[in-house]
Amino acid sequence: MAIDMTEMRHGTELLKRGFAKMQEGGVIMDVVTPEQAQIAEDAGATSVMALERVPSDIRADGGVARMSHPDLIRGIIETTSIPVMAKARIGHSEEARVLEALGVDMVDESEVLTPADPFYHIPKNDFTIPFVCGCTNLGEAVRRIFEGAAMMRTKGEAGTGNVVCAMQHARLVAQEIDWLQRCDEEDYSFAVEQIVEGFLKMEYESELAIELASTPFGTVDECIAGVEEILEDVKRMGRLPVVTFSAGGIATPADAALLMQTGMDGIFVGSGIFKSEDPVTTAQAIVHATHHFNDPEKIAEASTMMANPMPGLEIESLDVRMDQRGN
Amino acid sequence: MAIDMTEMRHGTELLKRGFAKMQEGGVIMDVVTPEQAQIAEDAGATSVMALERVPSDIRADGGVARMSHPDLIRGIIETTSIPVMAKARIGHSEEARVLEALGVDMVDESEVLTPADPFYHIPKNDFTIPFVCGCTNLGEAVRRIFEGAAMMRTKGEAGTGNVVCAMQHARLVAQEIDWLQRCDEEDYSFAVEQIVEGFLKMEYESELAIELASTPFGTVDECIAGVEEILEDVKRMGRLPVVTFSAGGIATPADAALLMQTGMDGIFVGSGIFKSEDPVTTAQAIVHATHHFNDPEKIAEASTMMANPMPGLEIESLDVRMDQRGN
Repeated sequence: MAIDMTEMRHGTELLKRGFAKMQEGGVIMDVVTPEQAQIAEDAGATSVMALERVPSDIRADGGVARMSHPDLIRGIIETTSIPVMAKARIGHSEEARVLEALGVDMVDESEVLTPADPFYHIPKNDFTIPFVCGCTNLGEAVRRIFEGAAMMRTKGEAGTGNVVCAMQHARLVAQEIDWLQRCDEEDYSFAVEQIVEGFLKMEYESELAIELASTPFGTVDECIAGVEEILEDVKRMGRLPVVTFSAGGIATPADAALLMQTGMDGIFVGSGIFKSEDPVTTAQAIVHATHHFNDPEKIAEASTMMANPMPGLEIESLDVRMDQRGN
Repeated sequence: MAIDMTEMRHGTELLKRGFAKMQEGGVIMDVVTPEQAQIAEDAGATSVMALERVPSDIRADGGVARMSHPDLIRGIIETTSIPVMAKARIGHSEEARVLEALGVDMVDESEVLTPADPFYHIPKNDFTIPFVCGCTNLGEAVRRIFEGAAMMRTKGEAGTGNVVCAMQHARLVAQEIDWLQRCDEEDYSFAVEQIVEGFLKMEYESELAIELASTPFGTVDECIAGVEEILEDVKRMGRLPVVTFSAGGIATPADAALLMQTGMDGIFVGSGIFKSEDPVTTAQAIVHATHHFNDPEKIAEASTMMANPMPGLEIESLDVRMDQRGN
C-alpha cells in the first residue's frame, strides 16, 4: 500500500494542466445568469465564468467585489453542459475552497475582485482544483505558475472594452521570453532575483526591517529553486509552460484575432459579450474570429455579423487600474 | 519561373507609393454616409475616408473608438467612384486585414481611433494594401516609412477646427529635414539613435531590464540600417520620400492654402466639411483653395463662398491630445 505522494502531486498537476489544455483555441465568456450561460454555450464557448456582475459593472459600482453567491454559481452549473469557472479574490483561499466545494471546474484568482491579501496569492498547489491567474509580465506569470496556477491569462484592463493593455501584457511576456533565451549568466541571475523579490513584498512593510525566511509557497530558497526550474522550462519551450489566454478589454472579433495572432492560446471575454448591443451575435462573431484568426475573410465576416460592440473607456481616465492589483 | 522576391516587394512598394502619388495636390474628406461621399466626390475630393463618426464627434463622445462597421464602409465603397480609405487603430493589424478584405483602397493607421498596441504600429510592409500614417516630427515619419507607410500626413489635432498643431508638425518636419542636410557626422549618429529608440519603448516597461534584439519590423540592426537608408533619401531629396499631406484642424479655405504654402502635398479635412454650416459649399471652397493655393484672389473667392466654418476648440482645453498617441 506504499503510495508515492510526490507522484500523486505531479499526477494532479498534470490533470490540472490537462483541463486547461482542453480550453486551447477557445473562448471563455463571463455570464451572470443561466440564460447567458446558454447563449455562451450555443455560440461555442469552451467554458463560462459564472459571476454576479461583469467587470464593467464592477468597475462602475466601485466598492469591494467578492466571490459570487453560491446559488448563482449552482444555477449556472445546473443549466450548462460546458465547464464552469468562478472567481475568487486574490489571496482568498477560503473563497477558493468554497468554489471547489460547490463543484466549479476552475478557479480564477482574479484582480477583477478586490484583493484579500496584500502580500500573497493563494497557495494553489494545496488544491486539487485547477486555477487560472492573470499576469502583466513574465515575472508575474512565473510566480503564479510556481504557486500552482495551471493556466495563465494576460490581465489586460477588465471592463474597459479597450484592448491596449491586453496587447501590452502579451507583448511584454513574449519579449521577456525572447530575451531570457539569449541573456547572459549575470542578466539571468538578476532576473531570478527580481522575480523572487515579488514574493517578499512584506519585508518593505515591516518597521523592524525583517528578512523573510519563508512564504506560504515554501522557503525563500525553495522559491528561488522553483523560479529557476520554471525559467528553464520557459527557455527550453520558448513560451510559458502552461496554456496562456488573453483577457481584459476584448470587445470585437478583430480584437480576438489580434490577440490570437500575437501568440495567445485563447480568449476570455468579460463585458465584451453581454454589454454589446446584441450579445447573441457578438458571442458567435467572437468565437468565429477566434477559430479563424488566420483568415481575414472570416474576420471580416465576423465583423459584419456584429451590431455595436460594448462602449469603451480610455485607460487614462480610469479611477481604478485592476491590472496593477496583486503582482 | 525564377521570381526575384526582392523585386516583387519593391514592385509592391512602388505600387503603394504610386497610389499615394495620385492623391497629390488634392483634398481627402471624412464622410460618414454614402450621401456625404457623393457631396465630397461632386466637390472634387480625390478620395474619401469612410468612418462612423467624424473626429469632433469621436472627441465629444470619449471612450474607445474602433474601426467602423463593415456595412458602413461597403455602403460608401458601392456609391462612390473615387478611392475609399478607412481607419484602423494604431497597432491593430487585424482591423487593417479586415479593411483590406473589404476592398478599401488605403488604410489610415490613425491616432483618431484609440491605440490598440502601446509599443508598436502595424508592420505595414507585410500588407499589399497601402497605408497612410500620421507624424508630428521627422523621427515619427521615418519610423512609419520604415514600417511600410506609403504616405504620411502631419497629425495636427483632429476634430478641433484649430490649425495650430497641423502647422506645428509641418514646420517641425521641414526644419528637421533642413537641419539633417547640414548636420555633422556626430549629430547625425545621435539622430539615428534617437529615431531607433522610438522602436524600443518596451525596454522601459520591463521589470527584468531586458534589452530588445528585435521588433515586429526586423532586428534592431535592421531598424538602424532602415532608418539610415530613409534618412539618406530625405537628405538627398530635401523632403520625405513619400507624399506628405496635412491633416488635423483644417476648417477654412485659407487654412488649406496655408498648409499647402508650407510645403504639404495635399490636405485631409475631417470634421471641417460636415461640421460646417453648409458642407456643400465648404467642400467646394476648400478644394478650390487647395488647387489654387498660390493665388490670393482665388483663396479670397473660396473664403467668400463659405457659410460659417465648423466651431473650433482651444488646444489647451482638450482632455485628450490625439496627436500624442503612438509616436
